[in-house]
Amino acid sequence: MRTIDWIDDEIVLIDQTRLPREERQLQITTVDDLIAAISCLAVRGAPALGAAGALGVLLAAHEAARSGWDEDTLHSAVHRLRGARPTAVNLARGVDRVAARLAEGVAAVRAEALLVLAEDGTANRAIGASGARLLLELTAAARVRVYTHCNAGALATVEWGTALGVVHSLFDLGRLGLVYAGETRPLLQGSRLTAWELSRLGADYRIVVDGAGAGLIAAGEVDAVVVGADRIAANGDVVNKVGTFPLALAAARAGVPFVVAAPESTVDAETPDGRAVTIELRSEDEVLHVAGTRIAPDGARAHNPAFDVTPADLVTAVVTEQRVIRPATGERLA
Amino acid sequence: MRTIDWIDDEIVLIDQTRLPREERQLQITTVDDLIAAISCLAVRGAPALGAAGALGVLLAAHEAARSGWDEDTLHSAVHRLRGARPTAVNLARGVDRVAARLAEGVAAVRAEALLVLAEDGTANRAIGASGARLLLELTAAARVRVYTHCNAGALATVEWGTALGVVHSLFDLGRLGLVYAGETRPLLQGSRLTAWELSRLGADYRIVVDGAGAGLIAAGEVDAVVVGADRIAANGDVVNKVGTFPLALAAARAGVPFVVAAPESTVDAETPDGRAVTIELRSEDEVLHVAGTRIAPDGARAHNPAFDVTPADLVTAVVTEQRVIRPATGERLA
Repeated sequence: MRTIDWIDDEIVLIDQTRLPREERQLQITTVDDLIAAISCLAVRGAPALGAAGALGVLLAAHEAARSGWDEDTLHSAVHRLRGARPTAVNLARGVDRVAARLAEGVAAVRAEALLVLAEDGTANRAIGASGARLLLELTAAARVRVYTHCNAGALATVEWGTALGVVHSLFDLGRLGLVYAGETRPLLQGSRLTAWELSRLGADYRIVVDGAGAGLIAAGEVDAVVVGADRIAANGDVVNKVGTFPLALAAARAGVPFVVAAPESTVDAETPDGRAVTIELRSEDEVLHVAGTRIAPDGARAHNPAFDVTPADLVTAVVTEQRVIRPATGERLA
Repeated sequence: MRTIDWIDDEIVLIDQTRLPREERQLQITTVDDLIAAISCLAVRGAPALGAAGALGVLLAAHEAARSGWDEDTLHSAVHRLRGARPTAVNLARGVDRVAARLAEGVAAVRAEALLVLAEDGTANRAIGASGARLLLELTAAARVRVYTHCNAGALATVEWGTALGVVHSLFDLGRLGLVYAGETRPLLQGSRLTAWELSRLGADYRIVVDGAGAGLIAAGEVDAVVVGADRIAANGDVVNKVGTFPLALAAARAGVPFVVAAPESTVDAETPDGRAVTIELRSEDEVLHVAGTRIAPDGARAHNPAFDVTPADLVTAVVTEQRVIRPATGERLA
């Protein structure tokens, strides 16, 4: 089962806002509905957003074909889709790659969009295998105890996953120890999504609050921290879900490898370093409420950055489908 | 209003599990009910636990006086109370100090217990004034922007607070900038209790998820991190609510002062360093549920350490009612 797919001229995606309580699929037939699904995080995760961007352009092409191919309407739809979330570079990449084929007509657009999806699965399996090899080499552990944050799993991609793809590959090799999954407030992608995936995999895991990660790493309970990325700058600075940076600080202090698993499409050569990235500020309500219940006093306000920047000097390695780069040693990605 | 007090031969305390929705007081008349209130965190915070320990011995003495002063029953009650929470040294301190007067009878016990409460208020006001002076000196900010974690406020003490006492003192001086309050999963003492206190104070504040603290500090949004402590070892290692250590890592990297505000009763000369402290593991349910709703898949497990250890080299200063110590420079507390 793919997280996001193109079936019978519709986008079909797992509604991640419903997990783990309910496994429900959304059928999406308009660009506006897709933008809404992206905004509410029914589909999320950098590589999955790349696929959503690609399929969104295909949807826009279908809409245009039905209504006489109005260029203004088409380009407006593509433009709105491209900006639905500002931080992940993959969304804009997926949009741009497929939009470049619009002049060739719907068939060419469809072929390109489906290629984006197919390539994602292939890339993730390559990342998983390469990342697992690297962790076994870096840690020399019989079974690698991994700490991960947010969800960089099959649900964040078309299939297999990036950081959780590495975990999956270790599991298949019989070399996976206990996995710690940070719950990842405010939207709990760790306790909702990563836990759901780890349960399906049959891995032994524990959910922890985000504040507990650093202490566990310092206490020697973790052999490696493995996370995904929403954008990687040319110098190796990594933009990922808020709460990633403190894990990297703790890992560096403890001498534990901090490994980022992400496809090449996440690397943004145009971004010199993390300071150049716009950090998405999301709704205060995500912090002030949990599971539909308000937890703060009336009148309380929140500040809700969705991402943080992990400086390159704290990043032991970036593993892509093509290469292993070591930013902490000064190696650049672009 | 005191967080915990002795009124008409009963302990009266604010039920902190109900805040911020409901301001309800509990009347406690037995040691067992007090232990239950401590275990469920109706009363929490190291200094408030010291007061609870002191008043608990007074309650035990009253119970003993009513039932013929059975020494075994009395000492068993005192022993159970002393171990109700393992990490905060203040609870055992409060118990021991008042229990030492048991041989002198109920009146002496009462006098000693009430003195513990009175001293707490005095100590906190001294910590607040000293901490505010220190922050103004360390940051040279017109208005100091403070990041705090958990609740080290009036609700964690008998009155005024420690870390939030410093914030209160800065506010009274007209020198407080924006306050960031980490929500403090799993039990949300930040968004429930600290936010409630800051609203009552009239301070400008934002609640953030715990993972956001490090990034805010790195981004230059914070002039100082100020937290309380559950126990401070002789070498200056600080045991505090889980999630404190990553804030100290971020502060050290950014060159931002990391200040611990706590009474002398929190300093434990018997504990050489943080490694010697038993970290309380609490129920998995605290992590797997929020506000009564289960957020993780069925069968998921959690790991729930209540505290972490911040090594002395990351602690810019410890402010007590008597002194300012600088562990990061190698200065010891005992």
